[in-house]
Amino acid sequence: MNDTARTREVARAYVERSEQRDWAGLAQLLAEDMVYEMPQTGERIRSRERFLQFNREYPGDWHLSVGRIVADGANAAVWMQVSSGSELMDACAWLELSAQGLITRVTDFWPEAYEPPAGREHLVERFSRSAT
Amino acid sequence: MNDTARTREVARAYVERSEQRDWAGLAQLLAEDMVYEMPQTGERIRSRERFLQFNREYPGDWHLSVGRIVADGANAAVWMQVSSGSELMDACAWLELSAQGLITRVTDFWPEAYEPPAGREHLVERFSRSAT
Repeated sequence: MNDTARTREVARAYVERSEQRDWAGLAQLLAEDMVYEMPQTGERIRSRERFLQFNREYPGDWHLSVGRIVADGANAAVWMQVSSGSELMDACAWLELSAQGLITRVTDFWPEAYEPPAGREHLVERFSRSAT
Repeated sequence: MNDTARTREVARAYVERSEQRDWAGLAQLLAEDMVYEMPQTGERIRSRERFLQFNREYPGDWHLSVGRIVADGANAAVWMQVSSGSELMDACAWLELSAQGLITRVTDFWPEAYEPPAGREHLVERFSRSAT
């Protein structure tokens, strides 16, 4: 298995083990000194231990599924569909892996729904979020 | 050049030609019946022609640069740094290419800055957006 195939597999397991609350399994994918960043809030979490705690403590009945995984050498991008109650949203996670195949960095984006600005109605049609 | 290498090159050109307002060059990368979607607003633009018009008409002195490109066969994910005036943000674009190497679909996410929710201060440090 080449680097890209391994990265693709790790990225999928990252989502699936998170969804399953398999914290021991998730820990196996993570480097001990990993860094997790959320640029939208400017928050950074250092270390596997704190990252796992962050996930365990994350409020709400959230569920993740893989929308798309794009893997390229030691990097992956993961498009996740996230639901929490009736709320449905997308997330974009960027993963970096070590030479040993452990996740060393996760950068997470949580793009929220918003009303489109005026002035481009002549070019667009609207679709329902649930159709994506 | 294999599919992944070609996809990576097309993704980079997509950002660079947009930044350069090289609309003729950008058009060469796009399938005529391409689809552009923004799930956050539920907006969809059909056809290369309307997509180019959308870009030409997009207000503001916006600038794009490549943060990261991850390419995998006919798919790519592009992390862009976007500035407009003093505003600085990230964008995540998901590209799909045809067998001929033309972009058939772009899904764009524009994650905006927000204040972090309370309750996780014991796990996080804060960093400045400009440091990413």
